[in-house]
This record gives sequence, structure tokens and C-alpha cells, in this order.
Amino acid sequence: MRTYLDCYPCFLRQALSAARYAGADEITQHEIMGATLDLLQTLTPGQSPPEIGHAVHRIVRERLGHSDPYHAIKTLSTREALALYPRMKALMAESTDPLAMAVRLSIAGNIIDFAQSDELADLWATVERVLVAPLAPDDLEALRAQLASASYVLFLADNAGETVFDRILIEALPVPVIYVVKGGPTLNDATLEDAVAAGLDACATVMDNGADAPGTILSLCSEEFRRVYAAAPLVIAKGQANYETLSEAGARVFCLLQVKCPVIGRDLGAPVGSVVVRQSL
Amino acid sequence: MRTYLDCYPCFLRQALSAARYAGADEITQHEIMGATLDLLQTLTPGQSPPEIGHAVHRIVRERLGHSDPYHAIKTLSTREALALYPRMKALMAESTDPLAMAVRLSIAGNIIDFAQSDELADLWATVERVLVAPLAPDDLEALRAQLASASYVLFLADNAGETVFDRILIEALPVPVIYVVKGGPTLNDATLEDAVAAGLDACATVMDNGADAPGTILSLCSEEFRRVYAAAPLVIAKGQANYETLSEAGARVFCLLQVKCPVIGRDLGAPVGSVVVRQSL
Repeated sequence: MRTYLDCYPCFLRQALSAARYAGADEITQHEIMGATLDLLQTLTPGQSPPEIGHAVHRIVRERLGHSDPYHAIKTLSTREALALYPRMKALMAESTDPLAMAVRLSIAGNIIDFAQSDELADLWATVERVLVAPLAPDDLEALRAQLASASYVLFLADNAGETVFDRILIEALPVPVIYVVKGGPTLNDATLEDAVAAGLDACATVMDNGADAPGTILSLCSEEFRRVYAAAPLVIAKGQANYETLSEAGARVFCLLQVKCPVIGRDLGAPVGSVVVRQSL
Repeated sequence: MRTYLDCYPCFLRQALSAARYAGADEITQHEIMGATLDLLQTLTPGQSPPEIGHAVHRIVRERLGHSDPYHAIKTLSTREALALYPRMKALMAESTDPLAMAVRLSIAGNIIDFAQSDELADLWATVERVLVAPLAPDDLEALRAQLASASYVLFLADNAGETVFDRILIEALPVPVIYVVKGGPTLNDATLEDAVAAGLDACATVMDNGADAPGTILSLCSEEFRRVYAAAPLVIAKGQANYETLSEAGARVFCLLQVKCPVIGRDLGAPVGSVVVRQSL
């Protein structure tokens, strides 16, 4: 998905927010905003929002020498999500359609997103909302069909804490899973450390994609990840940034997300708040 | 109130929104966003948000040669508000404290604000919310006391449509009112045409301030308005932009507004959604 003019205010907001998470004083916040304004003047057509986001968050990291401004937020998010793990397992035990239930729980976890908001949402209230919301788009049956024949799943993670919700889905899948996190900190995206803290190493093979960028920008990823990605029979991709980078990556890719921004909503044909299982084009 | 870094995303959003209201094609939208990014690079410390907003909306008007992008929105807002006039008069007829009721109704109208949102809010739902909300800050009794001795009131208008709600308050005041609108279009702020469409000329002396800027930036206003302003015994100033420009204009100035943005909320010490009657410092 290309970057729209509507995204510009959001990049500025993210730059300021990340600068503050990294403890920048007001002069440094000004410098970071100035550098972000410069960046927005030089965008080339066709760049996706995660490519711009990558550049924005690199500005913040480079100016502040702080490798991971969202570290504390990520730790908190994982802890809050782990506290809900037993309740989610109880829901799974009672479910008559465990795949559908687990897919919804994984999507519920996508509410944890510090690209969109500086607040950690009420996670259980989100679970209750997502469990009863209609899927729109709803490609769940296509996902179910492909799962029946795939020998394994490549699962592209999104944010720390959301990882715990993904674990519920992975534990419900009938095949092995390779769980892919970011190669370095960007926003509140999960890294290896975050995946292990959420217990993903106990239910999946965890690897990183070699990139410190939101979403999956293949040109920034390691050669190893690109090989694994090319070979995967079925890909589950979580969150808005993966949708922005993989929405046209072919029919073996399924994007699971909540729509949290009107630009993505317009691209998807679904309003903000939508609960989405969408097979890529 | 000075401009904070948090305001930058909002200026970009306003520029894009105004460009679209004015019917700009995508290339022109890009140019307007570029010019706005340039503008944000050159801000000088201490400028208030309405001063920046003035420059942003001038960019849009100059690029597009469209003198009033919000004209249709303003006409619609006035029509919707006029439809509620009889219901508001009925509330006034039943009220045991007409001044308090009329102040709240005038503040309810401040929900009409296309600087904050591209949608016209549900006006009657807003009335019902504002009628029962606590005032915070609450300087209503100080306003009441000054009204008892003032020979007339200078009333600084905000947005088209909100004018109808102001009419309710003006009709409840025991003294004559000079109602001041903008000297030219800026955002959805009321001009002479909008004030007349809302019937303000029947209950007040309507004049304009000579400026096509949000709020009241005295250096941009006409000499005539500045004289009237300097002489006024009591000033009622509506909306966020007037708060941003007059919050320290002295104890004869009362700002009536709803808090619609967290930056103003922080400045006021009141959360978003607050219903405010505040005597200036």
C-alpha cells in the first residue's frame, strides 16, 4: 500500500511520541520534528507507510543513541497480555470452533499498537468486542482450507504483547510454525527478547527477519529470512504494517488485523474498528 | 498560549482537509502539504496556534484562489443549528437559572469545529451532554458578577452554526451586545454573512474584527476593532482559538469553550470533553 498524504500527520505524531518515550528534552524533540519535516519533503512516490516509519524511527534512534525507546512499554504489554493467557485458554477449551476462536483472539491482541496511540488499551474489553464482531473482510474459510494442506506456517509477528495472543493461535494450529520477529527494535514491534518473554519459543521456531523496520519490507530483510519467506507454503501476517507491505503479496498470505486508521480502512473497504482476515491479492 | 510540537500534526491535517474542502486535485494537495511542511520549519518561538493556523489556511486560499473552502459546511452548520433554535428556546423558558442554561447552550454550540474534525457532530446529543456536565474550570459566578455591572458585552464569535447557540445566550443577557465575527473567511469561522444567516443582527450589533485569522490576533485586527476591544467593559470569547489567543488577556475576558484537544486540555488543566467557563489571567 502506498503512503497517502493523510499519513503525514501520523508520522509527525509518531516521531514526537518516540522522542518522548526515549526521554528527549524539548530541544531534541524540536530537532527530531525538524528532521522528520525534512524527511516528509523528500518522499518518493510509491513508498509504503512502514518504509517512511522506518526512516522516522531511525531518526529518533540516531539522535538519541537510544536503541529501544519502547522497551518499557513492550515489557508492560507482554506482562498485561500474559495475565490474560489463562482466561484465553479457558475460552479455547470451551470453543466449538477452536480455529475461529484462536484467530479472533490473535486479532484482539492487535489492539496493542503504539504507532496509533500512546495508551495501552483495555485488553479484555477488546477481546470481548473482537469475539463477537463480524469479520470484514472475512477470508477465514480460505485460511482454513489452506491450513488443511500446508505442512507448516510462517507467522509474521507484529507487536510485543500481541505475541501472547498469537501464541494462543499457534497452539491451536495443527502444523509447525516459524514465528518471525523484527531483527532490531522499531516502535513497539516484537524482537526475539519479546517473543521469548511471551513464551513463543515453547510453541514455535522463533527467528528474526533481519530488519529493524515496521511490517515486512523484503528489501531490508536478511537473505536468510527472504529464503524462508519465499519457500513458505502459507503465511499469516499480523497487523497494519504487515498489511501495508504484504496486501498484494499473493494468495498464500493472510493478513490478520484490526483496522485502527481510516487510510487503511479505505484501502481495505472496511471502517475503523473492523476485525479483518484478508487473503492477499 | 504558545504552539506546542503536538500541534504540528494537527496543522498538517488541517492543511490537507482545507485543500480537499476547496476541491484541490492530488497534485495541488501535495503542493499545499509541501508548503505547510516548509512553514512548520520556520516557526518562531512563542507564536500561538491561531497564528500558524492563519498562515496554513492562507496557503490553501492562495494556491487555490478559493476564498472560502468551508462555505458549504458553514451554510449546513447554520441550518442544522437553526433547526434546534425552538427546542433551545423551550429549554430557556423552563430554566430556573437562565444565565447558566444559556451559557451552557452557547458552549454546546462550540462542538461545531472543523479545525478538529471533518464531521458535523450530533448537535442535540451534545446539548444534552453539556447541560449536565460539570463546568471545569468554573468561573460562571465571576461572569455573573461582572454582568451585573457591565453596561454592554463584547462577544467574540467562533464558528458558523455555533452563532445560533450564541444567539440564545445573547438573548438572555440583560445588556446590549456587540457580536464580533471574522473580517474574512478562515476555517469554518463565522463571517458577517454567517452571523446574519443565524439571525444575530436581530439581537446584537454585528461587526467584524478585520482579520481572516482564527481566534483574536490583535496585531492582525483592524484599528476600529482594536479600539472597541480596548474599551469593552466585559468580553465573552468563544472557542479554542480565542482561548489560545486571549487566555492571559485579563480578568474582564471570559473564555467559553469545549476542550477538544489534549494540548489545550493540558494548558487549562482539564481533560478533553471538558465544558469550560474560564476568566482570563
